[in-house]
Amino acid sequence: MSLARFLAHYEALPERTLVGLMSGTSADAVTAAAVALRGRVPDVSVRVVGLRQHPIPDEVLQRLFAPRQTVADVAVLNVLVGELFAEAALALIDELGLARDQVQAIASHGQTLVHVPEQHATLQAGEPSIIAERTGICTVAEFRYRDMAAGGQGAPLVPLADFALFCDPAKNRAVQNLGGIANVTWLPAGGTLDDVIAFDTGPGNCLIDGLMRTMTQGHKQIDEGGALAAQGQADAKWLDLFLDHEFLRRPPPKSADLGDFDLELVRVVYRAMRDAGQSRADAAATITAVTAHSIANAYRDFLPAMPDEVIVGGGGVHNLTLLNMLRERLPEVAVLTHEKFGIPSAAKEAVAFAVLANETLLGRPGNVPSATGARRAVPLGKIVPA
Amino acid sequence: MSLARFLAHYEALPERTLVGLMSGTSADAVTAAAVALRGRVPDVSVRVVGLRQHPIPDEVLQRLFAPRQTVADVAVLNVLVGELFAEAALALIDELGLARDQVQAIASHGQTLVHVPEQHATLQAGEPSIIAERTGICTVAEFRYRDMAAGGQGAPLVPLADFALFCDPAKNRAVQNLGGIANVTWLPAGGTLDDVIAFDTGPGNCLIDGLMRTMTQGHKQIDEGGALAAQGQADAKWLDLFLDHEFLRRPPPKSADLGDFDLELVRVVYRAMRDAGQSRADAAATITAVTAHSIANAYRDFLPAMPDEVIVGGGGVHNLTLLNMLRERLPEVAVLTHEKFGIPSAAKEAVAFAVLANETLLGRPGNVPSATGARRAVPLGKIVPA
Repeated sequence: MSLARFLAHYEALPERTLVGLMSGTSADAVTAAAVALRGRVPDVSVRVVGLRQHPIPDEVLQRLFAPRQTVADVAVLNVLVGELFAEAALALIDELGLARDQVQAIASHGQTLVHVPEQHATLQAGEPSIIAERTGICTVAEFRYRDMAAGGQGAPLVPLADFALFCDPAKNRAVQNLGGIANVTWLPAGGTLDDVIAFDTGPGNCLIDGLMRTMTQGHKQIDEGGALAAQGQADAKWLDLFLDHEFLRRPPPKSADLGDFDLELVRVVYRAMRDAGQSRADAAATITAVTAHSIANAYRDFLPAMPDEVIVGGGGVHNLTLLNMLRERLPEVAVLTHEKFGIPSAAKEAVAFAVLANETLLGRPGNVPSATGARRAVPLGKIVPA
Repeated sequence: MSLARFLAHYEALPERTLVGLMSGTSADAVTAAAVALRGRVPDVSVRVVGLRQHPIPDEVLQRLFAPRQTVADVAVLNVLVGELFAEAALALIDELGLARDQVQAIASHGQTLVHVPEQHATLQAGEPSIIAERTGICTVAEFRYRDMAAGGQGAPLVPLADFALFCDPAKNRAVQNLGGIANVTWLPAGGTLDDVIAFDTGPGNCLIDGLMRTMTQGHKQIDEGGALAAQGQADAKWLDLFLDHEFLRRPPPKSADLGDFDLELVRVVYRAMRDAGQSRADAAATITAVTAHSIANAYRDFLPAMPDEVIVGGGGVHNLTLLNMLRERLPEVAVLTHEKFGIPSAAKEAVAFAVLANETLLGRPGNVPSATGARRAVPLGKIVPA
């Protein structure tokens, strides 16, 4: 089929099925979400029909986090991650019993290798040509580059989807993602796209995960359910010191990289607390409080008003201590999860990229300039034909 | 305009103007060629309406050839080369007095950073999102990945264009590109696409250029016109030794990287010849002969028959000594240049990628499986909307 005919067919479909693929900065897993999608922004609706957390093999993880990577390493990682993302998509499609031609497109974020907004540079591994070739499905990918070409930070990119899915006529809402990095989208009651504010609030799970790895010599990757932090007491001195971080004080637009939150700092704090006779639980409580406070502070410092509702998503929703701390810091705000809106929290970003790919295939822009700082709204991503 | 409408419009145009952008392995310049193109393969015709050799600034060259590049360096190079390619396209469009909407698409090869066919990995710098954003023109780029995803070597990719532009009903033809690396496309008289054979024959200008840089401590980059080599005598011993190179003996399909032709070898040969009292001209003649003989030998060893005509292109056509040596080695063959067919030799690869982008935008494949070793013919490249 010619590409023009494919796209005309795509446009005409009342409902389209897309698979969104995402792996966050902490590379926990490849999230694959199958989405039945209707319409287009602002009148878009999504129904998540399937979700898979596809494991990332140790070999790929070791290469991803290898200290010194050459140009050839980048080229090989691009291939390995591309194959992995293709596998994730195919496994989900098979689980759902879908035929491949029942999926119109794949939206792949890839795995970020580096993100340097000051130099307008970013690099995501996960070659979409491989995804298209293995699946036989048109693939849209590499979303961040075009926003950066237009002068933006290349992040956050979820705001358009947040706006389309969650904007409320009567309530101020904040959509808070808790990935490795945490980001917020501000949706004022009855606002338009121009009213949207979005930025990275700071650490999501990255500091907590880093602390767990440090304390257990890598045996534990996460504080499951926030159980350890729940038993401890946050140390006010270290908490204040951490919250004075340059990134947290800087006004938006801003986007963070794992490199912005130095795990050395976590290690130093942990050692100092241990030497002072404080427990592991106290250290976990302190670092979890850093995360919760940094989010609440960002709302107070940088949003035009406090939200009526916060809709949290991402892996961090399973950390109940983090959510409880967030509720304590935001007593006037209802803290809800994406599940209340029919979207599994873990699927959130994959769904957002499916929404963006849908816009791209319809020839429409996907970034929100007030969120990324771009000069204009531009279509995002590159299209790899089936 | 929606993407479907853009592509339907594109399909319907009797003649389309594309700008092809190419920078070879030796990174001499960004070649920008404006092409008026009609039809599609096999019935495609091209008219080169403009050609520009856009200089590559020293800063970019230094970064390209820096010995140790990090992941961040790759990300930044992708941006710098993208901006440079966009500049090259815009400068050519301005020189020609064209309005931007008179150019329907840009085809960008980018600058290869690494090509590792054994690991199915390749990396081209020159972010197409930047090219599309700066020019406002739909850009097709990153052609090699999809062929490699389909099991191919990702090279050579010019054979489809060679077939469409040069296949003759009565004559066996070889289209010989003389870039940093040299590659041939075999087009038997009256053959079909399945009969096409193509592979890298070995060194193009890379060894000669390397010798000139070595001998002049970098003051001279090339043996202009082949003038130095013309005054010397090739040394048979070193010539034979060089021609015993593993790459040259290996049967196709095969694609080379500058790394396959070690400049250390050139340096060793030069030093040995100097110490034996032989002149610089003798060294240049020897290395030029290596290039000419490796091409002629490849025809004898790996083509099903000798060509009636060889159509040479690429920067090497200006090296008259190289062409004369080639004629000597191929006495039964007419050695012609692309100019005889209305295509400036220097524009050749840029034109070929314009032909490939045209196929991609029409939803058609671009690789020749018998040339790259791919399992099937696939559409090449990623499409970045205007």
